[in-house]
Amino acid sequence: MKTLHVDLGERSYPIFIGQDLFRLVRLADYIKGSQVMVVSNTTVAPLYLAQIRSQLADFNTQSVILPDGEKYKNLDVLNQIFDALLQNRCDRHVTLIALGGGVIGDMTGFAAACYQRGVSFIQIPTTLLSQVDSSVGGKTGVNHPLGKNMIGAFYQPQCVIANITSLNTLPDRELSAGLAEVIKYGLIQDAGFFAWLEAHMTDLLARNPQALSYAIERSCQCKAEIVARDETEQGIRAILNLGHTFGHAIEAGMGYGTWLHGEAVGAGMVMAVELSYRLGWLSQQERERSVTLIASAGLPIQGPTTMSADEYIKLMAVDKKVEAGRIKLILLKGLGHAVINDPENGSSDSRRLIKDVISTCQAQ
Amino acid sequence: MKTLHVDLGERSYPIFIGQDLFRLVRLADYIKGSQVMVVSNTTVAPLYLAQIRSQLADFNTQSVILPDGEKYKNLDVLNQIFDALLQNRCDRHVTLIALGGGVIGDMTGFAAACYQRGVSFIQIPTTLLSQVDSSVGGKTGVNHPLGKNMIGAFYQPQCVIANITSLNTLPDRELSAGLAEVIKYGLIQDAGFFAWLEAHMTDLLARNPQALSYAIERSCQCKAEIVARDETEQGIRAILNLGHTFGHAIEAGMGYGTWLHGEAVGAGMVMAVELSYRLGWLSQQERERSVTLIASAGLPIQGPTTMSADEYIKLMAVDKKVEAGRIKLILLKGLGHAVINDPENGSSDSRRLIKDVISTCQAQ
Repeated sequence: MKTLHVDLGERSYPIFIGQDLFRLVRLADYIKGSQVMVVSNTTVAPLYLAQIRSQLADFNTQSVILPDGEKYKNLDVLNQIFDALLQNRCDRHVTLIALGGGVIGDMTGFAAACYQRGVSFIQIPTTLLSQVDSSVGGKTGVNHPLGKNMIGAFYQPQCVIANITSLNTLPDRELSAGLAEVIKYGLIQDAGFFAWLEAHMTDLLARNPQALSYAIERSCQCKAEIVARDETEQGIRAILNLGHTFGHAIEAGMGYGTWLHGEAVGAGMVMAVELSYRLGWLSQQERERSVTLIASAGLPIQGPTTMSADEYIKLMAVDKKVEAGRIKLILLKGLGHAVINDPENGSSDSRRLIKDVISTCQAQ
Repeated sequence: MKTLHVDLGERSYPIFIGQDLFRLVRLADYIKGSQVMVVSNTTVAPLYLAQIRSQLADFNTQSVILPDGEKYKNLDVLNQIFDALLQNRCDRHVTLIALGGGVIGDMTGFAAACYQRGVSFIQIPTTLLSQVDSSVGGKTGVNHPLGKNMIGAFYQPQCVIANITSLNTLPDRELSAGLAEVIKYGLIQDAGFFAWLEAHMTDLLARNPQALSYAIERSCQCKAEIVARDETEQGIRAILNLGHTFGHAIEAGMGYGTWLHGEAVGAGMVMAVELSYRLGWLSQQERERSVTLIASAGLPIQGPTTMSADEYIKLMAVDKKVEAGRIKLILLKGLGHAVINDPENGSSDSRRLIKDVISTCQAQ
């Protein structure tokens, strides 16, 4: 078992990474009160809820099981968590436990941030995507029909338990989606890790525990470092959004849940790579290595056939990375080096370039 | 014009108190970006929205008008603010302005806390209650059918503008409701202010601007001092809830909006005073002065006829001031001195005492 520390002053917390952690990590050490509410979904609860509850015999433990999928990450379903908390008379000392993927983590974290103006929570991410991404950094929230993650809070857990054993039940498609975020860390800040991923993609897809453990650890380290420097995304933290502005447009345009978040980020990163190449910031070889690695993870490298470049632009204009109507994008200046960029520079030429890149990266 | 400073480190902000402030305070000084969203309700917007908007000609200003009343302080109506923000493509640099009473302030503050994980907001409280209470201290949120203010955040505004001139349009019933919170500050921490209120209640009810200005200033000072010592209510801040646990039960039991918050707090404070008296902590004379002052403000000094003591207990058991099933109450040990108390001490005797006090303070 590896332990990483996310360093955020009095909001610091540990991330545990390893096999068989539902048995090895003592949950009780991270619970202050006597009440516990486990939040899970219809897919994950049958697999792991009993195991988690067996650790919590000394607590007054309740659970609430939500429907599974990104399309349920909204205010209405969030309210089901509040219903359960109030029906069970949970007070300000309750601890929420998020048992599931990124959607469960984001919603449970946001519910914890808001319930009685803030209670404790523990993250138990069960997908690769949530282990390397949403469980680190305290971004919580829900979607709005007009934009992804538009309603939320920065809120940190007591601890994160990334149990690699739980990845054994993960569908292949979701494993690939998780690898999109893993590859992202290589692209934005660690060329050495990028090369390691090129060499070990086969092991990762075969779910080799050592390879998965290293990839998760390196990804969490990367993210924890960036988040420690900029907890509420005033600046540098934005580089974590490589491919996300394009990706969010795909997710919203196709309807949440049609494309998995990681799939949309995969295609979105290809667009960011293409744009960086067109600006002369990536070599042809770097572009090819990037696209090849994304494809080798089983991810789409083209956007959906049904969306026009104008639709992207419209959806990208309501993304959180917009300032005064101008789209900010994360681009690459070489592998392992991301920059926050305003490629529009206010000119119509540059918006034409973005549209052109989107069209190039569309499936025909 | 008086200026008070709420001292919360980097979250500090000024409160302006005085007449004609919609003209005198330059709103633009507290707005960082170019976008502004004014949130108001159907009662207040016709009176003051145009005046506020005329100050904002240099900004891209939109407004959203919510229905008026405590019963609309819920997640669904909150979502109307998010709808307006997204439909108008407001980005992370938007400033929200709360123009209205406590409900508008609480909802706008919570919307600001959550929109894109946090944007700026300005409080323009237009009722006495909101000027002395909800505009200071950063408590924001909405109600849940099972409990008041159960979903929310601690979130501070850029500034608060308490314009006494706007109280001229306030219905008498709401003026009285506001005075409940003013009296509370005398009871919990300032015996001198309590005596001042006894001497000036007639002036306050006649809306004498000097009297109102002093009462608001003293109340805000009181609250600001307490909040600065305990921003997120880990301890001492709880004394601000004198009468509120009983009061919240009345509000929830009668249906939100039937009793005004201040009316419920008025009757609730009488119950807290009665319980303190029964415990031997207030003299008979102190009890009588308290009840007389509350009555002289035009407030109810008895609970509703239709609620049983058991109903109170049931509703009080889901209040936020509950720990491990035991009801914490704010009581008085002499005028001007509040204590946080667990009158139950786990015994059935003490619960019987609470019920007995409730019954005594019920209208027959």
